[in-house]
Amino acid sequence: MKGNVHLYTGNGKGKTTAAIGLAIRAAGAGMKVFIAQFIKGRHYNELSALEKFEGQIVIKQYGRDCFIKNEPEEADRMAARRGFDEVEKIVMEGAYDMVVLDEINIALYYELVDISEVAMMIKKRPEHVELVLTGRYAPQSLIDLSDLVTNMDEIKHYYHNGIEARPGIEY
Amino acid sequence: MKGNVHLYTGNGKGKTTAAIGLAIRAAGAGMKVFIAQFIKGRHYNELSALEKFEGQIVIKQYGRDCFIKNEPEEADRMAARRGFDEVEKIVMEGAYDMVVLDEINIALYYELVDISEVAMMIKKRPEHVELVLTGRYAPQSLIDLSDLVTNMDEIKHYYHNGIEARPGIEY
Repeated sequence: MKGNVHLYTGNGKGKTTAAIGLAIRAAGAGMKVFIAQFIKGRHYNELSALEKFEGQIVIKQYGRDCFIKNEPEEADRMAARRGFDEVEKIVMEGAYDMVVLDEINIALYYELVDISEVAMMIKKRPEHVELVLTGRYAPQSLIDLSDLVTNMDEIKHYYHNGIEARPGIEY
Repeated sequence: MKGNVHLYTGNGKGKTTAAIGLAIRAAGAGMKVFIAQFIKGRHYNELSALEKFEGQIVIKQYGRDCFIKNEPEEADRMAARRGFDEVEKIVMEGAYDMVVLDEINIALYYELVDISEVAMMIKKRPEHVELVLTGRYAPQSLIDLSDLVTNMDEIKHYYHNGIEARPGIEY
């Protein structure tokens, strides 16, 4: 079965949650899934939940969760660099049927990872590997390389009403 | 903690998967989740995966999965009707912290369920209950009643390249 490239972008809520949902569905069908979270480096509640899928879903973080409102530092670059090298190897080996690169678009936007390397990985991957890319600010070249692209558009968000991120809902 | 109303609509892939992802995250935080799937009545792979969360996530289907390309029949109406009555009761009892009404927008679009009843349920529910509504064609009145609305916009879909729905990816 040929794998496709999914891209979930836009400023609305639902990108990472959709990727988690895809991972769960794939696991339900007996597929093996690797989830790489770029930028993020904090304990999210999905991590606890995904522990139930030990041996089927592996999740790893390659970020420090702290630069988003500032400029990335050298440590952020190194974390993303190490992350991409690891994920690229995992994709190429083909042992996982689905590989999620969560927030890869943010890593690209801040130039922590190079678009030409991501493009190369997409093109050269084993044919059966399904890729799921997320994050706002997807570059046009990545849209061109993807088979399925959904733009999650924020129509309304309760953040604007002063409601803060809540455990179990946002993380 | 006050619950909010999420609405995921639009013609792009990611609505149900985002709801499943939200359910998983909520379960990871110890919340109890009820997922009602309207219209759908087929075995989706997420059902197998969610069995791992027995006692925390309950999923139930109230559809026959067959009318989408035709007109709904009496049996579809009855299934949706029974579904909404059950879900309304579950929401009002407040025993579940999150209740997902998957494809409720489609049920509304085909007038299997009445918008005034959904509006009433939203307004009168126990304050802590988080609601997650999905499906394309969300009516404006539901957008108005929701706290968070994401429109999932299809930019590209591999269906258009003749690729059919695949187990583990679409269902």
